[in-house]
Amino acid sequence: MITALVIGIGTGNPDHLTGEAIGALNRADLFLVADKGPAKQDLALLRTEICRRFIDDDHYAIVEVPDPERGPDAERGNSEYRAGVERWHAERARRYAAAIADSVGDHGTVGFLVLGDPALYDSTIKIVRSIEAHTDLDVELEVVPGISSLALLAARHKITLNRVGYPVHVTTGRRLVEEYRPELGDVAVMLDGSLHCADLLADHPDLVIYWGAQLGLEDEVLISGRLTDVIDRIRAARTAARDRRGWVMDIYLLRPGVAAKSARPGAEVTP
Amino acid sequence: MITALVIGIGTGNPDHLTGEAIGALNRADLFLVADKGPAKQDLALLRTEICRRFIDDDHYAIVEVPDPERGPDAERGNSEYRAGVERWHAERARRYAAAIADSVGDHGTVGFLVLGDPALYDSTIKIVRSIEAHTDLDVELEVVPGISSLALLAARHKITLNRVGYPVHVTTGRRLVEEYRPELGDVAVMLDGSLHCADLLADHPDLVIYWGAQLGLEDEVLISGRLTDVIDRIRAARTAARDRRGWVMDIYLLRPGVAAKSARPGAEVTP
Ligand SMILES: C[S@@+](CC[C@H](N)C(=O)[O-])C[C@H]1O[C@@H](n2cnc3c(N)ncnc32)[C@H](O)[C@@H]1O
Ligand SMILES: C[S@@+](CC[C@H](N)C(=O)[O-])C[C@H]1O[C@@H](n2cnc3c(N)ncnc32)[C@H](O)[C@@H]1O
Repeated sequence: MITALVIGIGTGNPDHLTGEAIGALNRADLFLVADKGPAKQDLALLRTEICRRFIDDDHYAIVEVPDPERGPDAERGNSEYRAGVERWHAERARRYAAAIADSVGDHGTVGFLVLGDPALYDSTIKIVRSIEAHTDLDVELEVVPGISSLALLAARHKITLNRVGYPVHVTTGRRLVEEYRPELGDVAVMLDGSLHCADLLADHPDLVIYWGAQLGLEDEVLISGRLTDVIDRIRAARTAARDRRGWVMDIYLLRPGVAAKSARPGAEVTP
Repeated sequence: MITALVIGIGTGNPDHLTGEAIGALNRADLFLVADKGPAKQDLALLRTEICRRFIDDDHYAIVEVPDPERGPDAERGNSEYRAGVERWHAERARRYAAAIADSVGDHGTVGFLVLGDPALYDSTIKIVRSIEAHTDLDVELEVVPGISSLALLAARHKITLNRVGYPVHVTTGRRLVEEYRPELGDVAVMLDGSLHCADLLADHPDLVIYWGAQLGLEDEVLISGRLTDVIDRIRAARTAARDRRGWVMDIYLLRPGVAAKSARPGAEVTP
């Protein structure tokens, strides 16, 4: 029996780990990490720093599991897409299973460090489930929640995500323009490589934005204000952040402005 | 100058505090707590336990600030509603300011312990801002994010809140039936005193629910499954939880079932 601990570690500030996460770090014999993404090197540093700082003994290993090549059949638009993705998932699961078997055999505790909260736009839970589905390993999953980039965005701007009694909608850059309506409430956008919010301005000139990049890191940047007034500053700050590190991660909340149709008592924009 | 620390403490398990929250607890000279709600006594115990466990010295005080009586003019439907609420907020702000002045004068650090994450359906940030607006106190606000009941719900059910590439919508029981459409993605419901999700079944018989009550406490209860199959068990568990403590707090996530119109590749229900 393998225990898989999927551990939310926040977005970069080790002070954002919970006691439960620190306890989980100390239970793992092995940490598996995907070997990918533009922030790869910074993430490796962060993981090393977190393990060094919080783990009491030195009986743990960190092993990188490179993702398999994603064949053309696993690309969007391919007629074999579903089957292709399925094969790709199976292959990935076998690699993880092999890495586990190599290090701890069929009995031990494996940790997965996840940025932010494993519940938001992260595939680690799915990967662990697919290890169970595609291999012989018997895996017991435990999930430790973490401070998400969304929670941190709100804390840094000193705002609530929702206005009193209103909803919050969390979506991706890819979907934003198609989905947006002020009735969604405050709309948080993740995974947006190109500030799609700018495309909303024509129809929603009063939108207010709370934007943050590299949250939890030393070079955290925050900008807020009427979207139309600050979008150029945000673009520049985003580019500058990327130039410094070679990558940028940003997230933002869009709030209907006071002049918007949906404004009612209680819908004021908090400064 | 007063520093106000609004500190997210998670929903009851002291292991869910972050290092940053523990640091903030240790900076406060005074903790102010609203004196309200059905869970009042349990919350008081929790706060005492958290302060005892995490604060290194004993130079802190915990002071309850009773909310002022909400006059009839501050009730929904009253023609003076906005002005009434405004007066009520101002009075509440003066009470907090008086409690601060009594304990620390015009210089010190005041902590506010908030259940879960201050960013979700909590009024503490608003209260602190209204102290600045309605009194002479000069207040510098800092917000420390916490593990919300929503993050904990997902962790306990070992799920992500979103399906891959899809959005997440967070709303209240009061708004759910009016707002619900499968296109919203996974829909999380807070502040629902009476399981309004049952009213969706006629139009959406395939909904899947992930429900949790008293999350983070010893008597945490989790139920998941097709809504139509488990709604009666959830009702019974909710009543039992309330009978034990005199109050119940619950939250749930609704996911479109595979048979729902919006189902597409990647929209499978994870077990
Ligand atoms: C793959 S998702 C993972 C989210 C993560 N699980 C969380 O809870 O924050 C990556 C997206 O999260 C957001 N994000 C992650 N880390 C961030 C950071 N340090 N600052 C700002 N946004 C961040 C960005 O929107 C990014 O595109
Ligand atoms: C006033 S809101 C505060 C939410 C809080 N700020 C958070 O981040 O969880 C109260 C609602 O949060 C949810 N909630 C809070 N604590 C909970 C718990 N321990 N278990 C389940 N739901 C909880 C319930 O939906 C409840 O009606």
